[in-house]
Amino acid sequence: MKLRVRFAETDQMGIAHHSSYVIWLEAARVEWLRERGISYRDIEQSGISLAVTNVTVDYLRSALFDDELTVQVQLVTAKSRLFAFHYEVIRASDGVTLATAGTTHVSVNTQGKPIRLPQQWLEPLNKYLNQVPSTSS
Amino acid sequence: MKLRVRFAETDQMGIAHHSSYVIWLEAARVEWLRERGISYRDIEQSGISLAVTNVTVDYLRSALFDDELTVQVQLVTAKSRLFAFHYEVIRASDGVTLATAGTTHVSVNTQGKPIRLPQQWLEPLNKYLNQVPSTSS
Amino acid sequence: MKLRVRFAETDQMGIAHHSSYVIWLEAARVEWLRERGISYRDIEQSGISLAVTNVTVDYLRSALFDDELTVQVQLVTAKSRLFAFHYEVIRASDGVTLATAGTTHVSVNTQGKPIRLPQQWLEPLNKYLNQVPSTSS
Amino acid sequence: MKLRVRFAETDQMGIAHHSSYVIWLEAARVEWLRERGISYRDIEQSGISLAVTNVTVDYLRSALFDDELTVQVQLVTAKSRLFAFHYEVIRASDGVTLATAGTTHVSVNTQGKPIRLPQQWLEPLNKYLNQVPSTSS
Repeated sequence: MKLRVRFAETDQMGIAHHSSYVIWLEAARVEWLRERGISYRDIEQSGISLAVTNVTVDYLRSALFDDELTVQVQLVTAKSRLFAFHYEVIRASDGVTLATAGTTHVSVNTQGKPIRLPQQWLEPLNKYLNQVPSTSS
Repeated sequence: MKLRVRFAETDQMGIAHHSSYVIWLEAARVEWLRERGISYRDIEQSGISLAVTNVTVDYLRSALFDDELTVQVQLVTAKSRLFAFHYEVIRASDGVTLATAGTTHVSVNTQGKPIRLPQQWLEPLNKYLNQVPSTSS
Repeated sequence: MKLRVRFAETDQMGIAHHSSYVIWLEAARVEWLRERGISYRDIEQSGISLAVTNVTVDYLRSALFDDELTVQVQLVTAKSRLFAFHYEVIRASDGVTLATAGTTHVSVNTQGKPIRLPQQWLEPLNKYLNQVPSTSS
Repeated sequence: MKLRVRFAETDQMGIAHHSSYVIWLEAARVEWLRERGISYRDIEQSGISLAVTNVTVDYLRSALFDDELTVQVQLVTAKSRLFAFHYEVIRASDGVTLATAGTTHVSVNTQGKPIRLPQQWLEPLNKYLNQVPSTSS
């Protein structure tokens, strides 16, 4: 999943603000699902959300305005109630890793109560468990 | 309504990003309602939203990180289906106006269809129509 | 310029928050410049910014999470000190216009003082003045 | 440090988006410094930034639009090149912890190179190391 650092995402240090990465991870996660035939929009419309329970980001180098970034996504846990993704945020121009990150999720219903993710979504997810991201992604 | 410019709200020009003002206007609007005994949270929970149909901001001077700002709010139109607010974003330290702005709104139901705002909310709003903001607010 | 509505850009009304459009306009403006061989990053690095002096957005219909949007950009004023763009935010799936918008800008130096935009940037800009966006853009 | 969840900070799950917490931590950190006589604005103007190298947030319960939150800040590491803060995001109405978090920082110059934090800032910081946040803060 590729994106460009938006001007609005920079701060007065002249770099992308660290909170922007959290938004990019989410956008990359949604795109990763889409590429595997899973629409997060459909999941949401079925009344289920993958609520975020933890976010961890390690910032190694700064991203600058207009940098093109690749976010590599790897599903590292896929249980009926618990999911975890690992990410690398890579500068497209030279392949340097700018940040690594992880998120964990629980599936919840519209009231926010944890529920088991229906097989309909769980099965396809399991297929991609621990799949190493291709360098082209 | 007072707020401080957050670091995340700055951009690499070293000033508050112009999109931040739109968020401040909304926060000030909610606070303006609250001070008048109208909870926007309650309006939302009753299934009604004041959807924004227009935003206009004139940027006169920059706001800087950590500047304390006052947002003055004036209700300039309050009909059953149409509302408009006028705003001044003022630097608290010296009273200089950094931006003026206006928003218009329609009341919509949860399906996004325009509806008449119930008297319960319309009446108190009308009381404050065109009330000049006090300099202390 | 195409983009997808990010989950983080939605609000509890279930639609893209109105402040998100202001950020999309900027991203589209930067992309519009890039497609015409003008790097806003280079302009910034030369010590010049195109500071926003006005933003106006008319919201016609809601954008939803994961909607693919096209932002059409038209340069409508290009003087040495004043620029203006017009925008249409279009839902890619059916071509419906969700919002129209305008921004005006002045060129400023790193101290925020208005300056004339150097010919180096002004000339190429003038070439694209009032050019109607192609339907494919 | 108290704040209110802004409408723009919610998402279509009807809760505050998880990226908003990262911005609140920063605002709380700046406020924590200010309350101790240390202006982050002055640090920045002296050419030094406390660049974020890690953010970790554990989300325990959701924050809702208009919730009043208290962010408690504790400085847990203060070396010449490395700082770490711990946070609790607490719902003001009932004292329930919604999230715990940690950030680590290095002091960098305007070129982004790690530098030792001058004694001028380091000494006052050390005074507050591991100070337990008062329940009233």
